[in-house]
Amino acid sequence: MQTNATRDSLFIENTARQPTEVGDPATDSRLFRRCLGLYGTGIAIITTETQDQRAAVTVNSFASVSLDPPLVLWSISRASRSYPLFKNGSHFAVNILASTQMDVSRHFSSKVDDKFADSAWWRGEFGSPLLDGCLAHFECETYSQVEGGDHTILIGLVRRASRFEGEPLLFAQGQYSVAYSHPEVPPSPEVGGVMPRTSSAGAIIPQIFEAHHLLSSTFDEHRHAEGLDISVARVIACIYDMPGLKADQVARATYLGQRDTEDALATLVERGMLVSSADGQLILTEAGRLRREAIRKRWEDFQKDQLASISEGDRRATLRTLSKLIEQNRMPER
Amino acid sequence: MQTNATRDSLFIENTARQPTEVGDPATDSRLFRRCLGLYGTGIAIITTETQDQRAAVTVNSFASVSLDPPLVLWSISRASRSYPLFKNGSHFAVNILASTQMDVSRHFSSKVDDKFADSAWWRGEFGSPLLDGCLAHFECETYSQVEGGDHTILIGLVRRASRFEGEPLLFAQGQYSVAYSHPEVPPSPEVGGVMPRTSSAGAIIPQIFEAHHLLSSTFDEHRHAEGLDISVARVIACIYDMPGLKADQVARATYLGQRDTEDALATLVERGMLVSSADGQLILTEAGRLRREAIRKRWEDFQKDQLASISEGDRRATLRTLSKLIEQNRMPER
Repeated sequence: MQTNATRDSLFIENTARQPTEVGDPATDSRLFRRCLGLYGTGIAIITTETQDQRAAVTVNSFASVSLDPPLVLWSISRASRSYPLFKNGSHFAVNILASTQMDVSRHFSSKVDDKFADSAWWRGEFGSPLLDGCLAHFECETYSQVEGGDHTILIGLVRRASRFEGEPLLFAQGQYSVAYSHPEVPPSPEVGGVMPRTSSAGAIIPQIFEAHHLLSSTFDEHRHAEGLDISVARVIACIYDMPGLKADQVARATYLGQRDTEDALATLVERGMLVSSADGQLILTEAGRLRREAIRKRWEDFQKDQLASISEGDRRATLRTLSKLIEQNRMPER
Repeated sequence: MQTNATRDSLFIENTARQPTEVGDPATDSRLFRRCLGLYGTGIAIITTETQDQRAAVTVNSFASVSLDPPLVLWSISRASRSYPLFKNGSHFAVNILASTQMDVSRHFSSKVDDKFADSAWWRGEFGSPLLDGCLAHFECETYSQVEGGDHTILIGLVRRASRFEGEPLLFAQGQYSVAYSHPEVPPSPEVGGVMPRTSSAGAIIPQIFEAHHLLSSTFDEHRHAEGLDISVARVIACIYDMPGLKADQVARATYLGQRDTEDALATLVERGMLVSSADGQLILTEAGRLRREAIRKRWEDFQKDQLASISEGDRRATLRTLSKLIEQNRMPER
């Protein structure tokens, strides 16, 4: 390791900060997937139709390429059942999912035979299915196809772009997410920012926004201290509550993808926290149960600590206020 | 438009839901960019070093491609000053930014000459600079380069992947963001989910999480009703507070990118809400000032409406609770 401290004053030794894990992705694809999962993405469903055959795949490999000409890309596994239709198709559509479409994402990632049968959609100008409720549609002509390892990269020339009102559905750290303005972004909440450090004083609603962000960040540190990723923490909590589930049931119950669930299960088995019966039923070991209880205890202690300085009367009044605000803004049950 | 109602029960007329805007991106690249902005992404800084020349570009076009072999991709404008170094380089590194690195993203997107001089970094195993504080590093060998319109797609074979603790920095709808678990994801908050509909009753901290989410969604509808995107809303608020700023100052003050700021400014000029002086100073027109005041009034009315049913005593108690929680969790001033 060469150093270069005189010219680059902040050039640092590579021992400065230890990674949680590091390795060669050619020999450890689970490590590679965990690292890739740290890059947050939206979720897109790509659709095509050729001679009355329709296909749809859910991806988070969508990316913009070029403005002039307008190009976008995404990648499909050559092992995918839908691959031949996209490979031979002249067009496809990119459907960008909104935060209200978590169920659509799950439906189109499932193994249902005709995914379109239970979905609201229409045929776009260039023949590809456009799903209802999306944030944006890109109707594309297949521009080129590039081999990329076990996937093919499909590049589309966007012939028509449309957008709708809504917020994006995100996938970050293995879970469905929604975006909030970065807490250091200064403007006022009515234009999408969180309040600056001091100006939320005296206003209940901005203070709720700020308190949520700060409490959430503080508790994240506790979860990290237990050495658990968010997906592992969620899987362990799920099996603790419902011992005997199988892997696909855990994936559904935790809202994690099949792949992230399998990775989390493998991690728990490796650490001696989980065993699987001959028919695939999952049970936590004593070590697994203790870890789950340790996180729950941290969460309970955290709440107690946080509220210790607040009087019983103020607590009751705060709960009344919050309950009313929640009730006033809840969507009608679906 | 053909219909197909008998076979596809949910196949719908394409008049079902009107887009906010729609068009041909070949003739309207601002429309295209606004649509692309609806796909949330992480932020990556790509670095390379060849014969003591270093380059770094900030992108949100990073995507995974293949597991076996492990491939990733990103795109660079062929007009970029850094393009020759990446084109001719044998290696590059992908640095995935953490939520604590908004300033790093801004620094590396700026026009500073030597971006590395004020940054903490070290040289990775394959020679490319790795930035300190990131969530993940992918050290890549250049695997192939594909022409894609005005950009080149660089595909990297990942030789070494590492990850660190932290949360991802996101870019969604033109602004820096952080991710929160999707509100429909059921598990308890200690494992990264928001509470389900009914079980947060009686617990102050989970109720703060739930109230924030619901209030935020409700107010989003008000902003949409004013016909303003989040980036336009932020720009108009900024110029209202600080008339006479120039475009680059607005970009810095709003934490929007240069390009999103320019698009928002152009939209405001088109709508007659903004004028620019000969030397580039920006001033809202009467229509612009009125629109800004309308949003602020909606926000104030929204807060009043929300709190109308809550007694004065409960309000004061709630504020005491929230202020204490905020104070207890604030980071020390930097």
